[in-house]
Amino acid sequence: MTELAQRIARDYGTPAVVVDLDRVERNIKRLQARCHEAGVANRPHIKTHKSPVIAAMQRDAGAKGITCQKLGEAEVMAAAGFDDILISYNIMGEEKVARLAALMGKAEMTVCVDNPVSIAAAADAAGRAGRPLKVLIECDTGRKRAGVETPAEAVSLACAIGERNGLTFAGFLLYPPETAIPQTQAFLDEALAGVRASGLTPSMISSGGTPNIVNLGKIAGATEHRAGTYVFNDRMMMACGAASLDDCALNVVATVVSRGGPDRGILDAGSKTLTSDTGGLDGHGLILEHPQARIAKFAEEHGFLDLSACRERPPVGEVVRIIPNHVCVVVNMVDRLIATRGGEIVGEIPVAARGRIG
Amino acid sequence: MTELAQRIARDYGTPAVVVDLDRVERNIKRLQARCHEAGVANRPHIKTHKSPVIAAMQRDAGAKGITCQKLGEAEVMAAAGFDDILISYNIMGEEKVARLAALMGKAEMTVCVDNPVSIAAAADAAGRAGRPLKVLIECDTGRKRAGVETPAEAVSLACAIGERNGLTFAGFLLYPPETAIPQTQAFLDEALAGVRASGLTPSMISSGGTPNIVNLGKIAGATEHRAGTYVFNDRMMMACGAASLDDCALNVVATVVSRGGPDRGILDAGSKTLTSDTGGLDGHGLILEHPQARIAKFAEEHGFLDLSACRERPPVGEVVRIIPNHVCVVVNMVDRLIATRGGEIVGEIPVAARGRIG
Repeated sequence: MTELAQRIARDYGTPAVVVDLDRVERNIKRLQARCHEAGVANRPHIKTHKSPVIAAMQRDAGAKGITCQKLGEAEVMAAAGFDDILISYNIMGEEKVARLAALMGKAEMTVCVDNPVSIAAAADAAGRAGRPLKVLIECDTGRKRAGVETPAEAVSLACAIGERNGLTFAGFLLYPPETAIPQTQAFLDEALAGVRASGLTPSMISSGGTPNIVNLGKIAGATEHRAGTYVFNDRMMMACGAASLDDCALNVVATVVSRGGPDRGILDAGSKTLTSDTGGLDGHGLILEHPQARIAKFAEEHGFLDLSACRERPPVGEVVRIIPNHVCVVVNMVDRLIATRGGEIVGEIPVAARGRIG
Repeated sequence: MTELAQRIARDYGTPAVVVDLDRVERNIKRLQARCHEAGVANRPHIKTHKSPVIAAMQRDAGAKGITCQKLGEAEVMAAAGFDDILISYNIMGEEKVARLAALMGKAEMTVCVDNPVSIAAAADAAGRAGRPLKVLIECDTGRKRAGVETPAEAVSLACAIGERNGLTFAGFLLYPPETAIPQTQAFLDEALAGVRASGLTPSMISSGGTPNIVNLGKIAGATEHRAGTYVFNDRMMMACGAASLDDCALNVVATVVSRGGPDRGILDAGSKTLTSDTGGLDGHGLILEHPQARIAKFAEEHGFLDLSACRERPPVGEVVRIIPNHVCVVVNMVDRLIATRGGEIVGEIPVAARGRIG
């Protein structure tokens, strides 16, 4: 593998973001099998790879559709022929309404909402598109991110959707903390009872998260799962037990470009490559060749190495491979991934949906 | 200004990265005047804007040349006609040597080194280009980043450069901590005496940093200054006293897309827009319309708002302007900046050198 990293450095320069397609395929097949066992459809989140090439691998393995986090991603995927797309994000504003309406002519769209402004925007898009739009209610069951906080609010918004011309109440979108499955079930049961009492019939209950793959099948009523990071995995996924080192399919090939002192060094991968997302972990990545080295901090193009715990210390010029803390944001920094298979470079994969605003 | 933000949201969608060209021009003129007063040439660092359009504004105001942090930036700038480029970074590896040699045919290049591997790479590039290459020794005077730690090492590397065919020892590159000017002067004096005793004549002593603009003229012997962030400024520059709010020429226009609870909300700008670079500050940006709001943390497309200290709290759909903590990394996330002048949208500026690897 280090020989491969050397070849990548020679042919592409460093830092380079490299994916092992054998591992990607294995990760894709494994999740598909787990979803199948659990009786839940697989709707992978493409925000991790932003690539129609990899989304096609997920579809070919059996994914029912895809999830996007913003219109810009969905536009790229729809243009590449993906025809069943969930945007798991509140959409609002004139510019976005127009884009959503245009997208509805190209793919079967589902959106989620947690407030009346998003419902009005969805209705506006449906009106402009002249066709119905499926809408999920986003529910917060402990993450304190987006989503209504109570089943009563979920039912109230569901009824508001049911009353809107052009909108179809489709169900609920969940993103439970991994430890909050019982609370999530209680929330969902109450919300389901409420909407059914109002004569609404949810057809889609979407849960999500790579760390929640272990919880597949544990939420009664869930019909789909959205996982993103599993396709590549990262140091965060290893830390929470969702992946092993062998499951990590992406690394950053970098060069040690300075060794100012015996205990320190500099990598040519800084916050403009690995990003400052820590994922709550100590250090900013795992260096496969020097696991005791700590990526202590970043400048934009400098990774500050603390080598004090290393017995063998990399000389200037050494090429290393880094498993990033958070892979989704690293992919988002580059326009292409270098693809490998069986230890050989096989091509480049454009990060086609990178840089799309909103 | 809020009306302008509304127009930007309507025309471009959010999140949008917006620059005020009036302020940009004022920042550029001010630094140029300060450099002139201090008798130091201005060689702005383009890593902040990555745009030939803005680099041309800096050149037209009197900049002597430009600074880039990597070959990819220098390639874009050379293609746009910039002919005097310093790369303030160790360059090494076959792929980069070939690119540096090619660049030498297009622009007058200066590079910096802090180790023999970089010196060998520079000599290799000069040999391939068939013309001399100017080389600075990078000196670390307290930042513990790249750079030799002692004047003796600096002198030793300078002599090694002097002995290499094709290389011209040009001088020293400094990036002193703002509080370390006396130590930097002592280091520089010793290094200068050493190289002069060896018969070498440095022609370029480059210092850098926007926070060091207050120190312009305080390093005896300095011939040039590299500042990057000053062109836009950010919350970090305000925090260290290098800029006022009026000097901040870039903001991120975002929308409040969720209000799950009375004390919290979600912005459509997360770590894929504002980045997780904190710059050591509490919170991830200053919301101009709600300065008491704290951007507490990020998901990729979610900015988590803590509104508990706000008397007026933004409803869902409100468009706000954010001064980011670290502007250089925010520009690097997008392919274009929205340009404004006198409260009007005047066009788009491509971030042409974004996404270049190494």
